[in-house]
Amino acid sequence: MAENITPRKSDYSQWYQDVIREAELADSAPVRGCMVIRPWGYAIWENIQKGLDARFRATGHENVYFPLFIPQSFLQKEAEHVEGFSPELAVVTHGGGKRLEEPLVVRPTSETIINHFFSKWIGSYRDLPMLLNQWANVVRWELRPRAFIRTTEFLWQEGHTAHATEAEARAEAVRMLRVYEEFARKVLAVPVIAGRKTEREKFAGAVESYSIESMSGNGWALQSGTSHYLGTNFARAFNTRFLDENNEQQYVHQSSWGVSTRLVGAVITAHGDDHGLKLPPEIAPRQVAVVPIWKSEAEKAGVLQAAERIASDLEAAGIRTKLDDRDTVSPGFKFNHWEVRGVPLRFEVGPKDLAGGHVTASARNRPGREGKFTLPFEGLAGETRSRLASIQSEMLADAEQRRDAMTYEVRTYEEFKAVFEEKPGFYRLWWAGGREDEERLQEETRATVRNIPLDQPDAEGTCFMTGRPARSMAIVARAY
Amino acid sequence: MAENITPRKSDYSQWYQDVIREAELADSAPVRGCMVIRPWGYAIWENIQKGLDARFRATGHENVYFPLFIPQSFLQKEAEHVEGFSPELAVVTHGGGKRLEEPLVVRPTSETIINHFFSKWIGSYRDLPMLLNQWANVVRWELRPRAFIRTTEFLWQEGHTAHATEAEARAEAVRMLRVYEEFARKVLAVPVIAGRKTEREKFAGAVESYSIESMSGNGWALQSGTSHYLGTNFARAFNTRFLDENNEQQYVHQSSWGVSTRLVGAVITAHGDDHGLKLPPEIAPRQVAVVPIWKSEAEKAGVLQAAERIASDLEAAGIRTKLDDRDTVSPGFKFNHWEVRGVPLRFEVGPKDLAGGHVTASARNRPGREGKFTLPFEGLAGETRSRLASIQSEMLADAEQRRDAMTYEVRTYEEFKAVFEEKPGFYRLWWAGGREDEERLQEETRATVRNIPLDQPDAEGTCFMTGRPARSMAIVARAY
Repeated sequence: MAENITPRKSDYSQWYQDVIREAELADSAPVRGCMVIRPWGYAIWENIQKGLDARFRATGHENVYFPLFIPQSFLQKEAEHVEGFSPELAVVTHGGGKRLEEPLVVRPTSETIINHFFSKWIGSYRDLPMLLNQWANVVRWELRPRAFIRTTEFLWQEGHTAHATEAEARAEAVRMLRVYEEFARKVLAVPVIAGRKTEREKFAGAVESYSIESMSGNGWALQSGTSHYLGTNFARAFNTRFLDENNEQQYVHQSSWGVSTRLVGAVITAHGDDHGLKLPPEIAPRQVAVVPIWKSEAEKAGVLQAAERIASDLEAAGIRTKLDDRDTVSPGFKFNHWEVRGVPLRFEVGPKDLAGGHVTASARNRPGREGKFTLPFEGLAGETRSRLASIQSEMLADAEQRRDAMTYEVRTYEEFKAVFEEKPGFYRLWWAGGREDEERLQEETRATVRNIPLDQPDAEGTCFMTGRPARSMAIVARAY
Repeated sequence: MAENITPRKSDYSQWYQDVIREAELADSAPVRGCMVIRPWGYAIWENIQKGLDARFRATGHENVYFPLFIPQSFLQKEAEHVEGFSPELAVVTHGGGKRLEEPLVVRPTSETIINHFFSKWIGSYRDLPMLLNQWANVVRWELRPRAFIRTTEFLWQEGHTAHATEAEARAEAVRMLRVYEEFARKVLAVPVIAGRKTEREKFAGAVESYSIESMSGNGWALQSGTSHYLGTNFARAFNTRFLDENNEQQYVHQSSWGVSTRLVGAVITAHGDDHGLKLPPEIAPRQVAVVPIWKSEAEKAGVLQAAERIASDLEAAGIRTKLDDRDTVSPGFKFNHWEVRGVPLRFEVGPKDLAGGHVTASARNRPGREGKFTLPFEGLAGETRSRLASIQSEMLADAEQRRDAMTYEVRTYEEFKAVFEEKPGFYRLWWAGGREDEERLQEETRATVRNIPLDQPDAEGTCFMTGRPARSMAIVARAY
């Protein structure tokens, strides 16, 4: 167990904070609820951005940038939207030394300002679909902040699309949810459940909302991305219309979808252990840390030379490598340094390794003996690449296994209440309840309906709460 | 001349706005001074980011993200800084439905908030140098906005570094200025003049400021990037100290440096012509537009097939290519579409081209006959790549020639006043004036001292304004 990190079992929330501090991912800002993302944390986010951005382009989206400030009146144009966001807004009342005539809202999301422009840019069916995305900061006032997971300012991407038909816009919302799901599995090694949100949990202004939900080490659910079919709600509010092929004016149908720096929180909570962070190789800022080990000055030169050569060979092969040649700290200090930061592979290079023609490797995802092995200098880059690929799939398999082991099914609300407190996790339950049932559920157990998975068993059942016939199962869990 | 674009000669400012609108680079926002960056404009900015980011990494900098909101009291800690920025601030007074105890400033730049963290993170000389950079949005209230060049919100990067010694921090400020200079020349094909700012034009809080200045088509100067040696000004205000090797507390010496979306304005104004935008291949979102041309349906299939093949071969060779296969608009419309957007090469593929086994190419940087040539299908990708490289260097050479042709030397203020209004441009003049001379200069001629170039003639002269002996020449011009 790493010094300075509270074990998960004794206090999971404290463990989370400790990992963030010790891995130097982030620091809290003087303004409550805001954070600084430090180099190691930001590099993870950049790798996430890279992977997502490529997927957005491959699905035909273009990047843009809309303004940070939105006139307050814009939000008021869509009734549910303003109601949902009002309590979370930051408001600029003064600019350039003067009181503003109309206060400006710091964007909590950009549906309104984007619709203002969609109504300028969209004239005919030929302009559709319009498929845009932006990478930006947004602000939602947060009373119970938690680094990466809930912060007043956060970084995200928001996709905004306009379509000629309802079917197309609905398909887009689901398509992008599936992109998130695939990305989470493949790149973050985080198995998520893609599903539809209930009425109660819908985005303010949406007709239908979807989410991906990941599981934290303590069995809580983290909503890690959302996608919405907005219908014509914003189009009506902003008069976003187009001339269809019959020369008639129609409102556009829209979608919006986003993931944020919260994904870093999903990675920490899905993979981390009592030694710190565990990073899937795909997003690790450094995939290999090379630690030269010498006792005498006589050994130093040869060891350093070999370590440098290894590091530069790996880099040349496209493997993100760090040679830790500091001579102000001990090898043990370095081991801990890279372990707590979650670097997938550590290579030790000492005199014995030189003599044996190999490095001594440690895989971060297999603590102890199991993760120790030697790799010959000969063909090292190729072997490293294949080990990294194995680690990536092992991490997904392990996360899946952990999640499955903490996924339960019960038949009745009584059964649920009896076990939920003691066995937190995902409860896959037949569901036909309404808003009031959800409220009661949350009040009595702190659990909520996370989503109704898109992938359903080919069967019907009985709602665990209401006893009504149910056509779909829901994921019920405590939200992080 | 393109329809809808005012010729530069008749109204340069209107030309600039027309190009931005017709090339669909940006649109103005409902909040005065803010803008939306549209896909074509944003893709240019992304290419600029990519090139700069690689250079920052190569020089040892790491990316981070600091908060958007800064407590108002932070700015007040550095006297010159708050005086300089106060008139430009946007202030958040309400958050989460409540009036805030302390108003928050939307960052105009991040020296203060970063120093708050530097003083937490820096303990000993071993933590130095600390070399950070962030890509972010900032807000400076703007009364005379102009898309890309002066906007209330803009996107930029800001480097912030802390060093053990003055010499190191000063060297860093100059090093990063030279990085900007090289980037502007090589990637943007914009020759800039790197130099030191006068006392009067210094950044609020800096000991020494530097800039790169590009020239617009009408002979005005555009400050396209700045770099500052901050001394210990912010370190003293925030108590940012370290234990040196003798175990004594010392203030860190700092630098900061930034470029913004204004660089897009530098590209537009340095290269654009009466047909619209001209993009250097290095940053063009699309380097080649392929336009298939057919008259009859019989021709269509063959032409389209060839055009598709060409476009996919070029893409596969790493050349950013767009196949414009729309059948709702004419070839002439497409030519104009890509011309106004500044795409470096246009390939036409018609029945005659198919028969001849070539494409008919037009280079955007050589309007008319001179820029027309054919390229055989055989070896097309390689030849395209080499043509793009030629265009890149031709554009730099042309921009240099234009700038040199509009760079003048005069000996006296009388001479200067006689010609400046009629012959705007860069005036390389011996300079030994002070703040009052600069003020008088600006009042009487609207010209300012842009900078004192780092590269100076090996000579001395007589100040054109004061008649005093002068050891360096200055660039005097009208600022955009």
